[in-house]
Amino acid sequence: MYFASDNTGPAHPAVMQALQDANSGYQPSYGADTLMEEVRAQLRDIFEAPEAAVYLVATGTAANVLALATLTRPWETIFCAPRAHIQMDECNAPEFYCGGAKLTLVGQEDKITPAALERAITGWVKGDVHTSQRGPLSLTQATEWGQLYSVDEISALCAVAHAHDCPVHMDGARFGNAVAALGCTPAELTWRAGVDALSFGGTKNGCLGVEAVIFFDPRHAWEFELRRKRGAHLFSKHRYLSAQMKGYLADGLWLQTAAAANTAGAKLADGMRGLPDCRILNEVEVNMIFATLPRATHQRLHAAGAAYSLHDGPLDEGPADAPLTARFVCDWSCDEGMIARFLDIARG
Amino acid sequence: MYFASDNTGPAHPAVMQALQDANSGYQPSYGADTLMEEVRAQLRDIFEAPEAAVYLVATGTAANVLALATLTRPWETIFCAPRAHIQMDECNAPEFYCGGAKLTLVGQEDKITPAALERAITGWVKGDVHTSQRGPLSLTQATEWGQLYSVDEISALCAVAHAHDCPVHMDGARFGNAVAALGCTPAELTWRAGVDALSFGGTKNGCLGVEAVIFFDPRHAWEFELRRKRGAHLFSKHRYLSAQMKGYLADGLWLQTAAAANTAGAKLADGMRGLPDCRILNEVEVNMIFATLPRATHQRLHAAGAAYSLHDGPLDEGPADAPLTARFVCDWSCDEGMIARFLDIARG
Amino acid sequence: MYFASDNTGPAHPAVMQALQDANSGYQPSYGADTLMEEVRAQLRDIFEAPEAAVYLVATGTAANVLALATLTRPWETIFCAPRAHIQMDECNAPEFYCGGAKLTLVGQEDKITPAALERAITGWVKGDVHTSQRGPLSLTQATEWGQLYSVDEISALCAVAHAHDCPVHMDGARFGNAVAALGCTPAELTWRAGVDALSFGGTKNGCLGVEAVIFFDPRHAWEFELRRKRGAHLFSKHRYLSAQMKGYLADGLWLQTAAAANTAGAKLADGMRGLPDCRILNEVEVNMIFATLPRATHQRLHAAGAAYSLHDGPLDEGPADAPLTARFVCDWSCDEGMIARFLDIARG
Amino acid sequence: MYFASDNTGPAHPAVMQALQDANSGYQPSYGADTLMEEVRAQLRDIFEAPEAAVYLVATGTAANVLALATLTRPWETIFCAPRAHIQMDECNAPEFYCGGAKLTLVGQEDKITPAALERAITGWVKGDVHTSQRGPLSLTQATEWGQLYSVDEISALCAVAHAHDCPVHMDGARFGNAVAALGCTPAELTWRAGVDALSFGGTKNGCLGVEAVIFFDPRHAWEFELRRKRGAHLFSKHRYLSAQMKGYLADGLWLQTAAAANTAGAKLADGMRGLPDCRILNEVEVNMIFATLPRATHQRLHAAGAAYSLHDGPLDEGPADAPLTARFVCDWSCDEGMIARFLDIARG
Repeated sequence: MYFASDNTGPAHPAVMQALQDANSGYQPSYGADTLMEEVRAQLRDIFEAPEAAVYLVATGTAANVLALATLTRPWETIFCAPRAHIQMDECNAPEFYCGGAKLTLVGQEDKITPAALERAITGWVKGDVHTSQRGPLSLTQATEWGQLYSVDEISALCAVAHAHDCPVHMDGARFGNAVAALGCTPAELTWRAGVDALSFGGTKNGCLGVEAVIFFDPRHAWEFELRRKRGAHLFSKHRYLSAQMKGYLADGLWLQTAAAANTAGAKLADGMRGLPDCRILNEVEVNMIFATLPRATHQRLHAAGAAYSLHDGPLDEGPADAPLTARFVCDWSCDEGMIARFLDIARG
Repeated sequence: MYFASDNTGPAHPAVMQALQDANSGYQPSYGADTLMEEVRAQLRDIFEAPEAAVYLVATGTAANVLALATLTRPWETIFCAPRAHIQMDECNAPEFYCGGAKLTLVGQEDKITPAALERAITGWVKGDVHTSQRGPLSLTQATEWGQLYSVDEISALCAVAHAHDCPVHMDGARFGNAVAALGCTPAELTWRAGVDALSFGGTKNGCLGVEAVIFFDPRHAWEFELRRKRGAHLFSKHRYLSAQMKGYLADGLWLQTAAAANTAGAKLADGMRGLPDCRILNEVEVNMIFATLPRATHQRLHAAGAAYSLHDGPLDEGPADAPLTARFVCDWSCDEGMIARFLDIARG
Repeated sequence: MYFASDNTGPAHPAVMQALQDANSGYQPSYGADTLMEEVRAQLRDIFEAPEAAVYLVATGTAANVLALATLTRPWETIFCAPRAHIQMDECNAPEFYCGGAKLTLVGQEDKITPAALERAITGWVKGDVHTSQRGPLSLTQATEWGQLYSVDEISALCAVAHAHDCPVHMDGARFGNAVAALGCTPAELTWRAGVDALSFGGTKNGCLGVEAVIFFDPRHAWEFELRRKRGAHLFSKHRYLSAQMKGYLADGLWLQTAAAANTAGAKLADGMRGLPDCRILNEVEVNMIFATLPRATHQRLHAAGAAYSLHDGPLDEGPADAPLTARFVCDWSCDEGMIARFLDIARG
Repeated sequence: MYFASDNTGPAHPAVMQALQDANSGYQPSYGADTLMEEVRAQLRDIFEAPEAAVYLVATGTAANVLALATLTRPWETIFCAPRAHIQMDECNAPEFYCGGAKLTLVGQEDKITPAALERAITGWVKGDVHTSQRGPLSLTQATEWGQLYSVDEISALCAVAHAHDCPVHMDGARFGNAVAALGCTPAELTWRAGVDALSFGGTKNGCLGVEAVIFFDPRHAWEFELRRKRGAHLFSKHRYLSAQMKGYLADGLWLQTAAAANTAGAKLADGMRGLPDCRILNEVEVNMIFATLPRATHQRLHAAGAAYSLHDGPLDEGPADAPLTARFVCDWSCDEGMIARFLDIARG
């Protein structure tokens, strides 16, 4: 019963096979492998963006901070949600990579609204040498709270940003989940709506460790390559990043694994809605559920070995019926049996 | 005929198998996987260092710069050889990770001598606020020119560094090759000789992409963990780094692959010594040969598809007998047939 | 009628005289001047802190960011008020000097409360490698909104910070105004209450450009010296910083100029309270008044050459009776005639 | 007998007077003072550069590193002489301000030659993502060894740099001394020869603490302003920087003080040439003399209170006739009596 994160499960067999297939003979290093040519073509095709600059790195944080650093000058501020991964979970990596740039938190909600963005941007006076200068907007799709921006919402946000000459980055660690849930095209969800750079996640969705960074305007290409190398994120045996991504993209696997994770999330949520004293706190749009369960339920689940993030505490002490908040994430490998077992135990 | 680098060949089947074995079920992320426990024990055992702090990253540059950053304050200077990887091949990554530290080049040779080190360190006046402050020594073992420091040489260099309160880092991207060639123990070559931190290479010697960083004094552990995270080098699905390293260390595989590469290097060198107009420029101690061959020979080899680094040029124009310098590297997978074919073509 | 800032007026004649007095003969450079010895003794005496490390720089931002950088590791977050100078007016200098540290805004008010501080600090999970780590608290005394922390308030805030192992910095660009208004001793307002490092302002209060940085624990001394030099803030002809500070401290001048500015502020506020349609927005505790006046009043004042910061706008267009917010600051040189004239014109 | 540095003497009375003159009434802060307008016009006039962007900072290191940071990307390397101030005397400030850029030392001499520069630049392979990228050339005029580049030499060096798309910075902490000695115009020595940015020194040559940064191409203006602010080098009471520079430039004072220092240097050198066992090591072109004197002579001079930098040692122990190297610098205030007394004592 593994709901701790979509990074605690195994890689998809097809990705493992692609890795195995890549493991013979000679390949030039540092991104000059022939597999990378294929990956570049795949991603340009999927995004209907034949000029896009496409790169691979091994971690989602690397994708985010290298993309952002390319779009940000050190005296600028990045606009993001208070709960954004770049704000909460990257140990100042964005500030480090951007040479000391600032993060300005927009609003107090999980999702950024155009009005809040407008207020945040205009909160910094344009052309005043004393203040942080206005830099990029970073959106997370799906958000850390498992919510989705619609194509229209993204368009509206990009319009606000661009009206102030701010570029737009999208943290798409769960981009596949978003596309699978929204049923739109990758292009609609990104450059057609105004997104300038995308962190396209693979790791959480069936890979071992690979993320793509896509700049829809290729003028950023060389600077990104230098930043990736300087950040120590350029792989010598790059073929093993390429192979993962190739296997992940082939035959739409990335959308199938994302859809599977979303479906599992929906099933788990459905089941939880039937649990006594369970309150689901978010709208379950992808593979993440935030919910309260009574302490006693958590105790039973933990005793049975269920793995998930308990946000409240303590687990061991206090009233048995006290509601404690937790996060549950389903990955592509989450099967019905596991969900059924979890619900059984939760029911008590 | 692949002699371009030891990062252009495949991973060892045993490492691939370890990866496959790791790919089932749940594993906590970010280094809390059970495999990492095993790897930590393996490395502490191999290095006879039961207290050592042991971490994994995916690139050699990451290992070097994160280790160095942990040992360096931003106003200090790192002492290294003019041809060190950190100086020549990391696009200012050391300066970036160390917050703007300086590199001071020691001597003009491939290997650093104690006398040159003493001169370099004392070239910066201790306690003078105006100058760079004295920071760590970084040694490369084996060097970029394929040379080895003996245990005594390392001890002598560490003694000079420590006498000036400078810690010592060793870039061991080819540490396996060094141990295999010198026939000493890993402990003798590192902490017993005075080395404080080691980048222990896996990638060039049979892995897909994994390097260990070992601090023999564990007080650096938490700072390193923060630096690794902040550098975006902490893997979520960390099990796949652990698995590689576990397979690489099991049953002494790392020493076997290194010995195989060294043996191939020696065989290739032997063969090249018999070539007309070939001059080998370095002492072939591990798996790297620097040599001049006549332009015509290079042309024949290139036409036949041989891959290696040609340092001089141009290949296509000029006297046929002009000696052009090149680098040849053998990895663990380099077989006798490949060497024989190369020599055949070189002979003309 | 100059109320734009306390940095738009002249330096005090006694400070100018001290500068003149210092301008003869030889003085060792870079802080080894004999005047600096006197300044160090003066400040240790004033603060009853015979061991304190005392340094001079030329700008308030330099004092703040060098002091903070000495107390902060790059992966940490500084806690400050949303309107703090380090957040709003230093163009990412704190982030730059701290190697990419983050600023966490505490509460939504001008002054930080212990409860808000506790929430902010515990908002970052201790020992979690993924998040920003807990770093120093930075208090501004007097605040950007012209408010004061009492000795008890500072003690309570320092207690919260220290309970979480967070050091405390005080931005005292207007420290003199605070001491003059509160009637306590400098020691009571700083180290006795728990403050670890102070930016002690001179520039706004009668000097040309000099600020002291005081560490009550001298173990930070050498690191600060290196950071000051590396930041390009170590003056070669340091005697001219020392001389200013010496003249500023001699015979309690710094308290007299601060008291004069506070008195002027109180008089201006008193007068403004009698103006029709004037609303004073802050409690006038030192030399700063935030107030709304009708647009027509602003227009008259501007036409007459009054200088002050108009926060709302536009000045020229809109209803004559619309209330527009402005900031008025009195410096030590602000005389009664100037205030009277301003009020006359405001009255219309 | 003060020959320690040109930063150990007093400021020129005319500069002090300008400071005094500036000290009345209101002036907008942060560089918007009316005096700055005058200074900008003065410098554009002196340099025959009506479009130049002109800024003031308080230290020579700030001028150098802010100018260089504006011309350098973090992955680039700056080319400079091994003895350059930016390499030897700025405690990694260039690396800090340039975000971790590298310094490549050109040749082994005090002055850079075109051939050595060509070798140094081409030593970094263009377009190779692994290496430092080629960045600006920084020349020091006059050099740290008191030598001068002729206009032709500067032109030749700039031609090499520009042929490789490298911009050129000149560290002119002693620019006045150079112009006074060479008898050319400021324009000839800078932009006409190809210099892109100049640190124009005031501090060493009669001011209290002010340096100009001049970009001959004004497109760098706004970035420089942001960098100056972010570096905490923007003065609030900026009028006092402007006033110094205004007084320094008025009526050619800067050239008179420089000429006076050069003349004093020449006189001291002449006298020293007549001393027994004195060997002058550099060509005395400006105000700096490097020479060996017997230990006994140094002992007599020190006993008599002479101040200068002794590079060898120890002073107190060893053969009386052992030659010890020292540096002697004359500033604008160095009078004949002081020189005569020094020579008297040196003669014994």
